[in-house]
Amino acid sequence: MYRSHNCGELNASNINTEVTLAGWVQKSRDKGFMNWVDLRDRYGITQLIFDESRTDKTVFELAKTLGREFVIQVKGTVIEREAKNKNIPTGEIEILVSELTILNSALTPPFTIEDETDGGEDIRMKYRYLDIRRNPVKNSLLFRHKVAMEVRKYLSDLDFCEVETPYLIKSTPEGARDFVVPSRMNEGQFYALPQSPQTFKQLLMVGGMDKYFQIVKCFRDEDLRADRQPEFTQIDCEMAFVEQEDILNVFEGLTRHLLKEIKGIEVDKFPRITYDYAMKTYGNDKPDIRFGMKFGELNEFAQHKEFPVFNSAELVVGIAVPGAGNYTRKEIDGLIDWVKRPQVGASGMVYVKCNEDGTFKSSVDKFYDNDDLAKWAKATEANLGDMIFVLSGPANKTRAQLSALRMELAARLGLRNPEEFAPLWVVDFPLLELDEESGRYHAMHHPFTSPKPEDMALLETEPGKVRANAYDMVLNGNEIGGGSIRIHDKATQQLMFKYLGFTEEEAKAQFGFLMDAFQFGAPPHGGLAFGLDRLVAILGGQETIRDFIAFPKNNSGRDVMIDAPSTIDESQLKELHIKIDSI
Amino acid sequence: MYRSHNCGELNASNINTEVTLAGWVQKSRDKGFMNWVDLRDRYGITQLIFDESRTDKTVFELAKTLGREFVIQVKGTVIEREAKNKNIPTGEIEILVSELTILNSALTPPFTIEDETDGGEDIRMKYRYLDIRRNPVKNSLLFRHKVAMEVRKYLSDLDFCEVETPYLIKSTPEGARDFVVPSRMNEGQFYALPQSPQTFKQLLMVGGMDKYFQIVKCFRDEDLRADRQPEFTQIDCEMAFVEQEDILNVFEGLTRHLLKEIKGIEVDKFPRITYDYAMKTYGNDKPDIRFGMKFGELNEFAQHKEFPVFNSAELVVGIAVPGAGNYTRKEIDGLIDWVKRPQVGASGMVYVKCNEDGTFKSSVDKFYDNDDLAKWAKATEANLGDMIFVLSGPANKTRAQLSALRMELAARLGLRNPEEFAPLWVVDFPLLELDEESGRYHAMHHPFTSPKPEDMALLETEPGKVRANAYDMVLNGNEIGGGSIRIHDKATQQLMFKYLGFTEEEAKAQFGFLMDAFQFGAPPHGGLAFGLDRLVAILGGQETIRDFIAFPKNNSGRDVMIDAPSTIDESQLKELHIKIDSI
Repeated sequence: MYRSHNCGELNASNINTEVTLAGWVQKSRDKGFMNWVDLRDRYGITQLIFDESRTDKTVFELAKTLGREFVIQVKGTVIEREAKNKNIPTGEIEILVSELTILNSALTPPFTIEDETDGGEDIRMKYRYLDIRRNPVKNSLLFRHKVAMEVRKYLSDLDFCEVETPYLIKSTPEGARDFVVPSRMNEGQFYALPQSPQTFKQLLMVGGMDKYFQIVKCFRDEDLRADRQPEFTQIDCEMAFVEQEDILNVFEGLTRHLLKEIKGIEVDKFPRITYDYAMKTYGNDKPDIRFGMKFGELNEFAQHKEFPVFNSAELVVGIAVPGAGNYTRKEIDGLIDWVKRPQVGASGMVYVKCNEDGTFKSSVDKFYDNDDLAKWAKATEANLGDMIFVLSGPANKTRAQLSALRMELAARLGLRNPEEFAPLWVVDFPLLELDEESGRYHAMHHPFTSPKPEDMALLETEPGKVRANAYDMVLNGNEIGGGSIRIHDKATQQLMFKYLGFTEEEAKAQFGFLMDAFQFGAPPHGGLAFGLDRLVAILGGQETIRDFIAFPKNNSGRDVMIDAPSTIDESQLKELHIKIDSI
Repeated sequence: MYRSHNCGELNASNINTEVTLAGWVQKSRDKGFMNWVDLRDRYGITQLIFDESRTDKTVFELAKTLGREFVIQVKGTVIEREAKNKNIPTGEIEILVSELTILNSALTPPFTIEDETDGGEDIRMKYRYLDIRRNPVKNSLLFRHKVAMEVRKYLSDLDFCEVETPYLIKSTPEGARDFVVPSRMNEGQFYALPQSPQTFKQLLMVGGMDKYFQIVKCFRDEDLRADRQPEFTQIDCEMAFVEQEDILNVFEGLTRHLLKEIKGIEVDKFPRITYDYAMKTYGNDKPDIRFGMKFGELNEFAQHKEFPVFNSAELVVGIAVPGAGNYTRKEIDGLIDWVKRPQVGASGMVYVKCNEDGTFKSSVDKFYDNDDLAKWAKATEANLGDMIFVLSGPANKTRAQLSALRMELAARLGLRNPEEFAPLWVVDFPLLELDEESGRYHAMHHPFTSPKPEDMALLETEPGKVRANAYDMVLNGNEIGGGSIRIHDKATQQLMFKYLGFTEEEAKAQFGFLMDAFQFGAPPHGGLAFGLDRLVAILGGQETIRDFIAFPKNNSGRDVMIDAPSTIDESQLKELHIKIDSI
């Protein structure tokens, strides 16, 4: 062993101990006759001292050659520091060095290894192994490990069994695009990497495994939106002989456990709201409920007056922004410009100031009197001193626009506190959603989701209205998990494939094994999956997942550190029976 | 919830309780007026009773329609069984059923769902979801989970951090054949699936992560020998600032912990033997030391006599088989035939019976007298009543043949007890091994393994003699783990690539990122990886890994259940910029 202690554990109780430490040179302060070096490892920083009068001359001179990020080993004595640093655990001591070995030298790193670095995203990704030396990244990886361990412990204690499902599976056109793997031994055939272990976990239920989970990598070959990765990690779970209520209780329990163990926060029973309620109240199926600003629908109070914009709108809807009644004209115009940006897409915005004296001042005073606006205030739950913003237009679009505004205002008002956690369940998702391009319905969750029995009759007539036994867990405005009670009989599954536009042959070719399995005694079952990357980022109080992934890819799906993907040998292609098809 | 209890937990203490159970019909015994059904779930079997005189008529009749593997839910009362079964935990009670719901019917399964099934390997793999219902498979998966949990717990408690490394990496021709993944976004380029996270774990050490582990899937596109899988699971580990001794101690500790926690077995400190000793003494670098039969080299005593076969041989070597002195001529001939099979390849075998009176009877009595044979007996540590078998020929081949015989005899003598565990370390592996076809040396472990400093000078002159800081953990004749202290400076790594026949350009193209990393302050580091599939199989007392993998592939790399690999759409190929290259 190169060390007797690590760089984070020595303190006043170790004074006069002989120790051996190893680590990286964080920085040195050379005062000529005295030279201090901060030695860093995963566990902390310990100050070394080389003193002309007390240190062997060779060692003293060698210490002067140390550059940043050199890897060294030192022997020495723990002594009391003169100028103590109360901010770090090792701040009361330093090491008077007697022996110094340079284990490895280092080129000057391309960015500073500090919490606040001077390196931009690109250079940090290229030298990710240096980036990981920085506390923010290192601590994120340690944090992720801690979360994963707690998840495993909790589920395992509840008799869940982690089962590894295969990575080389079968490509199915349903859902997102697959990554595929040419088979050398089976010419012209391909494996696919799993988008999720969905069918395998269902087969485990058919196999009687009863309570399954797996922390598992999944793959989607999609054009990458910001903060998405082609490979990502799921906490994948499934249970047999359960109803929706059981699933919600178990995984609410898991999340509550994580919040308590990891963050020390106790949360009450999670609110449960329906998808319809979420859309009407927050314009969003993953509402951030750390703050209010619930939607007030104003059709009743705003239409049939003289204002043609509202009269012709499908929906008029507003939110009351707390304490924003004193916004200046300039601030208001800024927000109007903000909602008119193409990313939001509103054509305009009406505002109503709720004065402290109970009167109102609005941009539509020409059309609405004080009594009218009082009704708006009531519908949006506005208080004296608030500002009401109102949008109008087609219902779905307008709700999405107002939701964007609500989130933006909450951010500006500091209402999105990353150390506050407001989880909830959104339930009763629609079974199908209309693809506007093709005019066809496809599964909102996936084709194995069971419809609510009482809505089955609507499948033929109003497919968009059929609700599913599907649910999402939402935390601070992010969907962190989602799942459903599955179909477990062949007849219903065949019906579902039919409604989704599969021919019988397609269904059999792609999912025949699952429907076969359903004939041999499939139990009722259901489950869900959490996105681990996102979950740890949110628990860690961060907006982006990237620092919680050791070696992430960029938005073109490249690993810029190892330079992958890359070309392969002609001979490899030949063995795999494929050719490059250049256009 | 479909049940109040599971099928493994009710006993006499629950008598008179109203319960709800759900599960599969294992079997029924219909006596006309009385009908017993064994209800099975993951946790056990509970007997249900339907009694003409006590059960509602509809329920009673419905029960008669139940087939094997039907999924049912029952309500009823726990009552004392008349004929108790002491062999199962629920054997004192049965459930007098009052309500019965058929949750799903089942076709007759293609093989019996029993511990000893009538289904062959192929049919069990096709219907793996039914196979998993059988105790031997189900319990193997639960056992695997338990082992994995203990591994994580042990390492995590020692401050190891599990870090997920990427699955979409870069293809390198070194080592086995890669599975590759065409990139849609980067025409003509490919990712590779990792054969191991080797370079990433080394980069984590450069990144200061200090103690890393990961239970991770790895991929090798090799022609499949028996009991190998194209995707397999490693417990992958790495530590910084350590020497070989530290690694051996930590992971010996892990294995000892597993043996204790999982098997309740305490083992002493593991023996450590060198590779050279292992080859000389067992003819094998993964010796099974649950039994003796160590090799005795006989050149000194057997050559320079009148027996030309031995005189011309590079090596004459024997083993003493305990208590086999009374083997008949037929048994001996059978063994001679066995070693002459092409799989073993010996050209003949000499035997020496060690009679109980201290005399010998051998197949070479013409050439050797009693005194000669006494020396052979001493060299092979033979006792009275043993049989000595002797092979001769080229040293390496002969050792391999005798090793095969040793293992075979041990199996026949019942010396390979699966519930006995004899772990050891084999150390000082050669750095390089000669590829007989190409006449070139390649890395025995991998190109990142560090040579022993004292052997460095031999690299130019006798490369085959250079020893590495490389070690294997061996358990019951299987290599369950292996690793090395790595090279951590660019100069040595470059030298190694040179000796392995890489041009500078090739080394840079494939491993430039690693050599770059070594310039920025790489610490001394090393590690190892365990094969989890094999480890759990051995701990589980089994010879094959297949039942410890939920969904294994067959020897052609196919998943016969889901029928993968399979063809993919023309449009998918087009998007990926590849064509099938039919010959």
